Formats: sequence, structure tokens, C-alpha cells
Amino acid sequence: MKIVALAGGIGGARFLRGLRAAAPEAEITVVGNTGDDISLFGLRVCPDLDTVMYTLGGGINEEQGWGRVDETFVVKEELGAYGVGPTWFGLGDRDFATHIVRTQMLEAGYKLSAVTEALCDRWKPGVRLIPMTDDQVETHVVIEDEQGRRAVHFQEWWVRLRASVPALSIAAVGAEESTPAPGVIKAVEDADFVLFPPSNPVVSIGTILAVPGIRDAIAAKTIVGVSPIIGGAPVRGMADACLTAIGVETSARAVAELYGPGLLDGWLVDDADADVRVPGVDVRPRPLLMSDADTTSAIAQAAIDLALELRSAEES
Amino acid sequence: MKIVALAGGIGGARFLRGLRAAAPEAEITVVGNTGDDISLFGLRVCPDLDTVMYTLGGGINEEQGWGRVDETFVVKEELGAYGVGPTWFGLGDRDFATHIVRTQMLEAGYKLSAVTEALCDRWKPGVRLIPMTDDQVETHVVIEDEQGRRAVHFQEWWVRLRASVPALSIAAVGAEESTPAPGVIKAVEDADFVLFPPSNPVVSIGTILAVPGIRDAIAAKTIVGVSPIIGGAPVRGMADACLTAIGVETSARAVAELYGPGLLDGWLVDDADADVRVPGVDVRPRPLLMSDADTTSAIAQAAIDLALELRSAEES
Repeated sequence: MKIVALAGGIGGARFLRGLRAAAPEAEITVVGNTGDDISLFGLRVCPDLDTVMYTLGGGINEEQGWGRVDETFVVKEELGAYGVGPTWFGLGDRDFATHIVRTQMLEAGYKLSAVTEALCDRWKPGVRLIPMTDDQVETHVVIEDEQGRRAVHFQEWWVRLRASVPALSIAAVGAEESTPAPGVIKAVEDADFVLFPPSNPVVSIGTILAVPGIRDAIAAKTIVGVSPIIGGAPVRGMADACLTAIGVETSARAVAELYGPGLLDGWLVDDADADVRVPGVDVRPRPLLMSDADTTSAIAQAAIDLALELRSAEES
Repeated sequence: MKIVALAGGIGGARFLRGLRAAAPEAEITVVGNTGDDISLFGLRVCPDLDTVMYTLGGGINEEQGWGRVDETFVVKEELGAYGVGPTWFGLGDRDFATHIVRTQMLEAGYKLSAVTEALCDRWKPGVRLIPMTDDQVETHVVIEDEQGRRAVHFQEWWVRLRASVPALSIAAVGAEESTPAPGVIKAVEDADFVLFPPSNPVVSIGTILAVPGIRDAIAAKTIVGVSPIIGGAPVRGMADACLTAIGVETSARAVAELYGPGLLDGWLVDDADADVRVPGVDVRPRPLLMSDADTTSAIAQAAIDLALELRSAEES
């Protein structure tokens, strides 16, 4: 069985861990969001790719969902002593090493996809992790505060401001000119089906879909998504702030419709959203809280089952 | 009183601490060696500048003489887990922050002299520390081992090989085309005298003197040096291996002669070398072991006294 999953950070990574457990023999290709990537201290940081890599590789800080377990913050403290910021982005010492290796390889001329593969040589995530693109795509958020109306990097809005200032709009800058990273389209073409984990529909899945070629390639496949919204609220994170920014209601139905007609075939919603109906989409309610490894794996299994069911229905 | 001192790493830094204590009111400009600088993990490392900065700024690891006190090595350990080396250069987490700040500033277009000034804003070394040049000068060592005859970076010979393979020659690559960093020549011109701390005469003082313009500028001044050789052996480090490489005997006399006629005016040697005579140089024996702060300060005071004595003799 060959599966392609698009993924953002924490929610996506946890779902993928369940997916790997549910289908240990499957060949899983993860197309990771890079719109959140940011250069800090001259180093290239890829928060979503790293969260997937650390989570599946056993190095994640389980409580916070991102960053490394047993992390220390000596470098950050020292940078602070030099008066060098930003201080709002919590890079730990172990994490710094990842960014140092990545930056050194990028400066040597390797593409992000090759760098990610090299980093995964250590982490052995059990999936093939490919960035959505080797080109620079950066999610910017237009906000308006006492400094006036201005565009800030997604991380500044998300991490520094904790999305407390309303986003007027969100744009994946550079997406239109980007091309999928090597292997992405081939993996989709070879896949039995495509899954959308409960990642942020705007700044994770939405950004990946904004890379020309990816949406068309996956549209030809059976696609099953897992709703990141339960009973009108995000399972985690601040997806509601992103949805509001683009004028979409925070509901399992609205997210399915956001992905657009002809894309989703199946949609797993929580039992709390059992009444959701989406034209042309097979909506199935079940418990969606990824509270532990077993329940997460069961959710992934339900997504696989629905995808296989819809796929064989399409074929017959 | 205005003093210029040329300096390498550990020996120079310790002497400078004594100098600052002996002449707290003096305006001290330190011209630092950058021939040992190396790029590691994509970061620019300046071992001698940092040793001076950390030593005078109270951040040095006193026992080893280089690196930071209370240092941790998480980043290095993680880089090792990625299989990324070299592992023979011991960069600690606190030290990494310095190199991250430096590299970021260099990449932003600042010159090394401006970067060094910015780093010193934090360390407040009590001296003005200027790199000998903003240009890239790199000390290379020609060695011959089972891999044949080849040139290696000074640090590879010094740190990785611990100078265990004889050096056939030593060259400051790029020195001929380099120019003194802004402020170096002016500081020398304004100085009452120039001091050579007991730094390595070949790869520290010698490299600084190889920057065109510096030797000529200081030659017009009263210069007093402190011998790094006591009784035919280096006080610390492996200066003998460097001297042998350039065909110079390891003795207090030979080092004074190496600096060339017309450069040194005074030469402090250890009591063990009381019989040393150097034509045209006023040689004064005294205890030269920098065993603690007080003895180091007394050595610096002796150098100041000799410089002032020789200067007033020249003037009269």
C-alpha cells in the first residue's frame, strides 16, 4: 500500500505516527509544509518538517508537541546576553544543531529536499519526508495594530503575537512561482490514496495545495481528510484565527468545503459533528481526539479504511 | 599612556590581563591574530580574538585557557549524532552563540573589526580589541604523513594532530594581499610604545607582522617583547614545533633575532636565560612564569617600565 499524506506540524505529525502504526507495511510519503520556514540567527529553521521528523524519529518533546525532548537553552541564553534576538522563538541547543547542519548543507548548494533526506538518515522516521517545494514560499500575515497595517512573517503572528491580533489576510508569498520538490508528484501518482491529517487547513494543507501542480496531481486520487475542527473549535493550535482571516467559518463542514469541490472524497469528522453534510463528500463521524497512541492509530486506520472503500467504489 | 599590544591566544590573553591590572588607566589597543580563524559548521570561528575577549571579559575557562567557563556541549553532541564533523574542534554551546552572532553579522556585510567591536560591547574587555586585518589570512602548515605531503589548515595541525607531525613549512596565506584593519595603524602611531606578549612568535606575532604596513608602523615605535621561551622550551603551547618548522632554534635569543633587526628595543627574558645577549636589544632577565594574577601583572609592569625607560633614552 502506498500512501501520500500532506502535513503541517504538531497535529499532522501525531496523526502520521498513528498512520505508521496502523499501516506498518505501507510506503508512506509525507509532503511537508515549508511556508512556516524562517531564517533565525542566519540559520534556516523548518518548524513543520522538524516536528514531523522529531515526532516520528522519537526525538520530540511530547508535552509541548514541538522541539526536542531533554532540550537545553544555553545558546539562546547566550544570544540573549549578546542582545541578539528574536527571543520569542524558542530554539533549544539540540534543535540548533539541526538548523546548523541544514544551513551548512543549503549553503553548500544542496536543495532542501536533499537536506531533509540527509537529516532523516539520522532520525529514520519510517516515512519518506519531502518538503512541498525546494523553492522559497513564505506565509505572510497582514495585521493591523498600533504600528499600522503591515505584513509580518507567519511565525511572528503565530508565535510572537500568539495570533492575538486579527489577521486581515494570509498569503503564501512565492507559492505561485514555486514547483513541487523532486519526488512529490511521482509519489502522488504512485499512491493508492492521499490523506489530509488534521493539520491547519489554511497555513499547512492550504499552503501545500498552493504549490502549482500538487492540487492537480492529488485531485486525480482518492482523498480522505481528517477534520482539524471538532464541534466548532480547533483540536489544537489556533486554526480558527486562520480560518477567520480568510473568511471561513470554523466548522468541520466549512473546512471540507474550503478544500474545494472535486478534491475531498471522504471526510472524517468527530461524533460531535455527526450532522455535517458536504455535497460530493462522504462524511463519516467517529471519535477524533488523538488522546493517545492507540486512539490516534485507530483514527488513521479509519482514514485508511474509508480511502480504500471509496477507492474501490470509484473503480467499480 | 597609550599602549598597543599584538596578541595571539592564551599566552597573550593572560599577559593582557596582567597589563590591564598593571596599567588600569592606560588606553590599551590589542591587535589580534586572525590567521588561526576557521570556518566550522558554516560558522566563522576566531579562536585568538575570542580567547582575548573571554579572558579579559571574565568568561574564559581558566583551567584550559580557551573556551567558556561552565560550558556545555549539547550542540556538538547533536552534530555528532548527525555524523557531521569535525569532532576534533571543541566548540561548546556558549561558544557557538558567539560564532552564530559573528557569522550572522559577517553575512550581513559587517567587517570582522566591526563584528569584534560589537561582541566586545558585551564582554567589555577593558581594551580595544581589533583584528589585525578584515581580510582573510589563513595560516597553512605543510606536513608529510602517510597521506603524502600536503598543506593543512593551522588548526588541523595544531588541534587535530597536536603538532605531532613535523611541519615542513608554515605560511600565512593571503597575508601579502591583506591590509591592516581600520584603526590598527592609527593606534600604533598614537601609542607611547608597543608590546609583544609571550605569544607564539611564528603563528601569532609573526602572522600579525606579515600584514603589510603593521611591521613598518610599529618599527617606528619603542617595542618591548616578553619571551615566550624559558630555558629553551615554550612556556605553554607548542611554539617549539612552529620555530623548528621555520628553522629557528627554540631559545629566547633566537626568537628575539627572529623578530628582526630594528624591531625589538627591549626583551624580557626569564632568569633562566639571563645570559642571553641580542645585538641592539636591551635584554632584561626576571621571573617570567605567569603563575598567578600578581606575577603576571608584575611581568606586565616590568615590560611597561622597560618600554618607558627605553623610550625616554631614545628621546634624550
